Amino acid sequence: MNQLTNKTCVACRVGAPLATIEEINEYKRQIPNWSIVEEDEIKHLKRVFHFNNFVDAIEFTNKVSILAEYENHHPSILTEWGKVTVCWWTHKIEGLHVNDFVMAAKTDQL
Amino acid sequence: MNQLTNKTCVACRVGAPLATIEEINEYKRQIPNWSIVEEDEIKHLKRVFHFNNFVDAIEFTNKVSILAEYENHHPSILTEWGKVTVCWWTHKIEGLHVNDFVMAAKTDQL
Repeated sequence: MNQLTNKTCVACRVGAPLATIEEINEYKRQIPNWSIVEEDEIKHLKRVFHFNNFVDAIEFTNKVSILAEYENHHPSILTEWGKVTVCWWTHKIEGLHVNDFVMAAKTDQL
Repeated sequence: MNQLTNKTCVACRVGAPLATIEEINEYKRQIPNWSIVEEDEIKHLKRVFHFNNFVDAIEFTNKVSILAEYENHHPSILTEWGKVTVCWWTHKIEGLHVNDFVMAAKTDQL
């Protein structure tokens, strides 16, 4: 299997290809806790992580941020009491690139 | 004038009064960059803060979090590249308490 966590997030440019249906089907299986949601007709990978308090939530937010900055690919992160919602997508191509699946898998490892 | 930044955020209980129209009118003037938005029929105070990169955005998120934890009143904080959206409201009364205006004013001071 083409393990997502063994892949690296590659530099993405305007005009890069969106993930194909086949890629989405293959990679989605490796990140079963993520949903594909559409906002403004742009597909995102979304997962809600639960915590017992606010401090644990913001600590997780910071871990995701360090990963994002390291890979130079940035999600939206909604931090609330006991809950962090992470969304990955690729702004430049207004949709899902294979990078987003790689980042979702790496987020699961945090 | 009843300065918001001189007030403290007080412990709020279920059944505490929502901010009155008079309070909203008085306090909203002190936080002109905040909007009152309704989501699921619950009023929130919302402001978007802009930054030049992701690192500055997450640093601001952490400052807001430290304030929130110190005052034991927690907002939602949406962190994105170059942008942080903060929403204050009071879960226990499903709307705006004077506390929320106090916290918005203190967020402006960060």
